[in-house]
Amino acid sequence: MCIALRHQFEEFIQLTDEEFEYVCSFFHATKFNKHSLIIQIGDVVDREYFVVKGLLKTFVTDENGKEHILQFAMENWWVSDYQALNTKERAGFNIECLEEVEILYFSLADKNKLCDEMPKIERFFRLKTTSGFLNLQKRVMVLIKNDALSRYKQLYEQYPTLFQRVPKSMIAAYLGVTRETLSRLSI
Amino acid sequence: MCIALRHQFEEFIQLTDEEFEYVCSFFHATKFNKHSLIIQIGDVVDREYFVVKGLLKTFVTDENGKEHILQFAMENWWVSDYQALNTKERAGFNIECLEEVEILYFSLADKNKLCDEMPKIERFFRLKTTSGFLNLQKRVMVLIKNDALSRYKQLYEQYPTLFQRVPKSMIAAYLGVTRETLSRLSI
Repeated sequence: MCIALRHQFEEFIQLTDEEFEYVCSFFHATKFNKHSLIIQIGDVVDREYFVVKGLLKTFVTDENGKEHILQFAMENWWVSDYQALNTKERAGFNIECLEEVEILYFSLADKNKLCDEMPKIERFFRLKTTSGFLNLQKRVMVLIKNDALSRYKQLYEQYPTLFQRVPKSMIAAYLGVTRETLSRLSI
Repeated sequence: MCIALRHQFEEFIQLTDEEFEYVCSFFHATKFNKHSLIIQIGDVVDREYFVVKGLLKTFVTDENGKEHILQFAMENWWVSDYQALNTKERAGFNIECLEEVEILYFSLADKNKLCDEMPKIERFFRLKTTSGFLNLQKRVMVLIKNDALSRYKQLYEQYPTLFQRVPKSMIAAYLGVTRETLSRLSI
């Protein structure tokens, strides 16, 4: 499982075998069944997860029972309730496995320890967070600028495989449109 | 001007007077008149800006002449075309001064040099970027979950002073709604 993690770090930094072995020693591997909630609203959140296999969604359900999806996370993505993780608030989101999931996780304390000890790891997380920031900026622009059809097409171009893995109702909940709107567009 | 910058860094890290003086030596101060474009679509982007005084907007104008605002930046905010800055693409946004602006800026090369030399500075930018990431996540949730009125109210609660500094048409362009929609809501 750690090979995927090594590739992940090497997207931005170089690590020797010894360094990577040390980094890897901070991570724990686990598996979850489909439909498991790895984080539930109200939880104390102390872990950041790296997806080795499978697909998850970060979501809330509003007072009308309507689901809103903040994020999907598939192979090689990081996922957590970052607001809760970084501010010590209780979780404001549920994170649910949409498939069988294999995951590596480490605690926030261990992340901070690694960043203290290895400036390279702090560099990695700075650049990885920048990359997440840029993706969210793109999503904001799509949301304020595009209608439902353009949002759908843009997501399809960016993540074509996602459409084979989740139902249209979840795509709608991620795009901020209703399932009925997608149907009217013959999607 | 550097006092505001020192407070900014000390939000996340501690610096001695000598360390701060060194950090400060990488920054350049400048002023812009209202309506100046500090970045224009198509520019090479090599600078990150810290706003000491004034207000700016990051925006695009679509093929129908409609403006879409990605970001406002006021005192103590950082601003740049981050996509262009981090990927070496040409600027995809305009950044315009909505007031007289006093700004500190440094080059990406100098930012990287500082991060190489001072792990504390890398820590600062990791945590600052995380904070920007969390703000964008909140904005995405507001955009996919809330109607025009809720979006407006949420922004007003978050940044009440912004509403005294920009016209309603810009608030609409930031919220992803039309000026007419806000008018229908008697806003």
